[in-house]
Amino acid sequence: MRMYDLINKKKNGEVLTNQEIEFIVSGYTNGTIPDYQMSAFLMAVCLKEMNVEETSALTMAMAHSGDMLDLSAIEGIKVDKHSTGGVGDKTSLVIGPMVAALSVPVAKMSGRGLGHTGGTIDKLESFEGFSTSLSEEQFFDNVNRMKLAIIGQTGNLAPADKKIYALRDVTATVDNISLISSSIMSKKIAAGADVIVLDVKTGSGAFMKTMEGSFELAQTMVNIGDNVGRTTYAVISDMNQPLGIAVGNNLEVIEAIDTLSGNGPEDLLDASLTLASYMLLGAKRVATIEEARELLLNTIKDGSALKKFAEFVTAQGGDASPVFDTSLFPKASIIEPVYAPKDGYVSDIHTDEIGMTSLILGGGRETKESEIDLTVGMKIHAKIGDEVTTKTPIATLYANDPEKLSAAKERFIKAYTISTEKVKAPNHIHGIVTKDGATKF
Amino acid sequence: MRMYDLINKKKNGEVLTNQEIEFIVSGYTNGTIPDYQMSAFLMAVCLKEMNVEETSALTMAMAHSGDMLDLSAIEGIKVDKHSTGGVGDKTSLVIGPMVAALSVPVAKMSGRGLGHTGGTIDKLESFEGFSTSLSEEQFFDNVNRMKLAIIGQTGNLAPADKKIYALRDVTATVDNISLISSSIMSKKIAAGADVIVLDVKTGSGAFMKTMEGSFELAQTMVNIGDNVGRTTYAVISDMNQPLGIAVGNNLEVIEAIDTLSGNGPEDLLDASLTLASYMLLGAKRVATIEEARELLLNTIKDGSALKKFAEFVTAQGGDASPVFDTSLFPKASIIEPVYAPKDGYVSDIHTDEIGMTSLILGGGRETKESEIDLTVGMKIHAKIGDEVTTKTPIATLYANDPEKLSAAKERFIKAYTISTEKVKAPNHIHGIVTKDGATKF
Repeated sequence: MRMYDLINKKKNGEVLTNQEIEFIVSGYTNGTIPDYQMSAFLMAVCLKEMNVEETSALTMAMAHSGDMLDLSAIEGIKVDKHSTGGVGDKTSLVIGPMVAALSVPVAKMSGRGLGHTGGTIDKLESFEGFSTSLSEEQFFDNVNRMKLAIIGQTGNLAPADKKIYALRDVTATVDNISLISSSIMSKKIAAGADVIVLDVKTGSGAFMKTMEGSFELAQTMVNIGDNVGRTTYAVISDMNQPLGIAVGNNLEVIEAIDTLSGNGPEDLLDASLTLASYMLLGAKRVATIEEARELLLNTIKDGSALKKFAEFVTAQGGDASPVFDTSLFPKASIIEPVYAPKDGYVSDIHTDEIGMTSLILGGGRETKESEIDLTVGMKIHAKIGDEVTTKTPIATLYANDPEKLSAAKERFIKAYTISTEKVKAPNHIHGIVTKDGATKF
Repeated sequence: MRMYDLINKKKNGEVLTNQEIEFIVSGYTNGTIPDYQMSAFLMAVCLKEMNVEETSALTMAMAHSGDMLDLSAIEGIKVDKHSTGGVGDKTSLVIGPMVAALSVPVAKMSGRGLGHTGGTIDKLESFEGFSTSLSEEQFFDNVNRMKLAIIGQTGNLAPADKKIYALRDVTATVDNISLISSSIMSKKIAAGADVIVLDVKTGSGAFMKTMEGSFELAQTMVNIGDNVGRTTYAVISDMNQPLGIAVGNNLEVIEAIDTLSGNGPEDLLDASLTLASYMLLGAKRVATIEEARELLLNTIKDGSALKKFAEFVTAQGGDASPVFDTSLFPKASIIEPVYAPKDGYVSDIHTDEIGMTSLILGGGRETKESEIDLTVGMKIHAKIGDEVTTKTPIATLYANDPEKLSAAKERFIKAYTISTEKVKAPNHIHGIVTKDGATKF
């Protein structure tokens, strides 16, 4: 088999066999196929596409390029959740305790990542002493004992994806559904869960800006999961504005705690309940989504979810007292409102720019080495459809540096479009995708 | 400007500006753009194409990537000829003396190249002492004095093309009309001629196997030439069988001498006259092709072309006596006939395989370091349409090694298809392409 012939085959729009795709992935990972052949191949894939079988083969070849985690030491059906990423997305912090409170094991491996805020691990480090450096034994034991644990990314997970992703990133071969899907799914599959629930964000703050693209990406990933024997669901959730009110690390943790206490914003609660419902369904803990939703709401009402959250923080070395009194978290030194630039209705929020505001304040990482400021961020008071005047504070910014605050403020205001006409607020959830197809709301 | 954005632009099927194309070519040549970005770009070009303006810009950027030869020391309109390559193609040896005999300057720069026989320089080295290592002054002086000189490739001609070609060769991005055309034309333009006559071969022994592809390639190259101010014509000539009778180095020189003496095969004479006519037309030596053809035929009848050939060989240090007595050339030690495998009509000749036969005999180079045997090769006695029996020698092979002969013989026979039905011989010339379009014969 020669890489030249396989590039040519894809260039001519032909379908590659499993064996051919495995040859490409293993050859590129071990260095026998050079970057310049791989990038020509990736461009041919972008322009001539891959079918479901090819995409599944690519996913599995990348998953098998490194360690395949064995979660069999954990009792029950293991469920994982993955979000394609958005601004103000703290659903993991809400979902984990609710699902665990219902005895479904949540064994989460998380990264730190780059972006406008830290990853789930960074956010949890708002609790003094909290650590994700568990041994595998501790990790499995914690999950078995109390159904919830988070460990930092360990082992050599899907190294082929890592190498291919880095190449795509510099050769304009990022935006292909097969390549995006296989990149996400290869890591999820290598991470070992039986059930995968995907939160595919759509809109101005999402990777996928269009509804059509988001549904297509979701269906492709669900099909891959189904093809390789993992129960997979996707929820298409709105990212035309930040999710919830808080953006920033400990501000988001506080909002998650508020939500688990029954005082959270409606959109965050709705998104969390929807995602968690499919996790319970996949784990066969419930027979219907309605049943799941009721049980989940009950974990909030009876305080079991909040208690689970505190238990989990404590088990990983953290001081859980802020769970019951969020005023114990450290605070930013400068807290200032931002007012609407004119009277009218919020018609559009350039959500990526809101993310940039958080990054400017110091809440995220620009490079792997960046230090995160856990206290900075913002609370958003005006969302799409809300009526505002120039006296309405549309947000409150939390900062520790006056210069950064001033730059952030300027950027924040520009992200808002105020119209004179009334505007309808977008749905929180746009649809559900299963192996049988999509249901659009 | 970022290469990433330009790859993306072409991937989206957009048209690149001259400035953008220059950025790509110079960046790749000087190494600031890495192979893996260039190969992704080349694949995007293959699948999304380039228009005439882009192709011209690419050609000029590659031409300007190295030395641009200055032929202004040569008097008159400088004419160059280029063949896309075929088996038994010795037209340069016939055309050069005819055109020079009519006082049109032929200043030829030639390479050695890889292939089934040597290049024009190798063939001319059949004359003992012949050398193309002329100084620029000698070269210009020879052309001014007697209108014909050949120099080995000097200087740093279109290094961008060299580097891009090597990358295309390993990334399955060879067969795109814009990339092929710009590769050929960049070198021709850098080589400095005012008029370029292209011999685009079509058929089983050509790079372009289809008539449609050959006309498209020809038109693209003619348009590039026209776009950058060089008068350019293309002749579409047949390569469904070897041109003429002889394949091999000194065998081809002998056939060229026979043709200049009025005893050559009709197809070679026709192809040479057609190409040379457009050279005379481009040089404004004649007003019509008919006039050119008559003048050219006259150089054969009056012996002036043959005399010019001898004068040229002598001027470059060669012993020209074989021009007037071809029996003086060294001969292969084994000369053996090949018979038709069955009775019938020659319906198809797999011409690439005939080329391979010559290579097996030792007449060509497999690698840059290969030594060429100037005496080996073959004469082909049966061409498409000819009636043969198992007693008809369809070719005579010239060899110096019995083992190579036996392998060559076997390969040669397989290249022939004999049918029971009568077959029409193909045209020698299939059409002419000028900036005003194609005329198909």
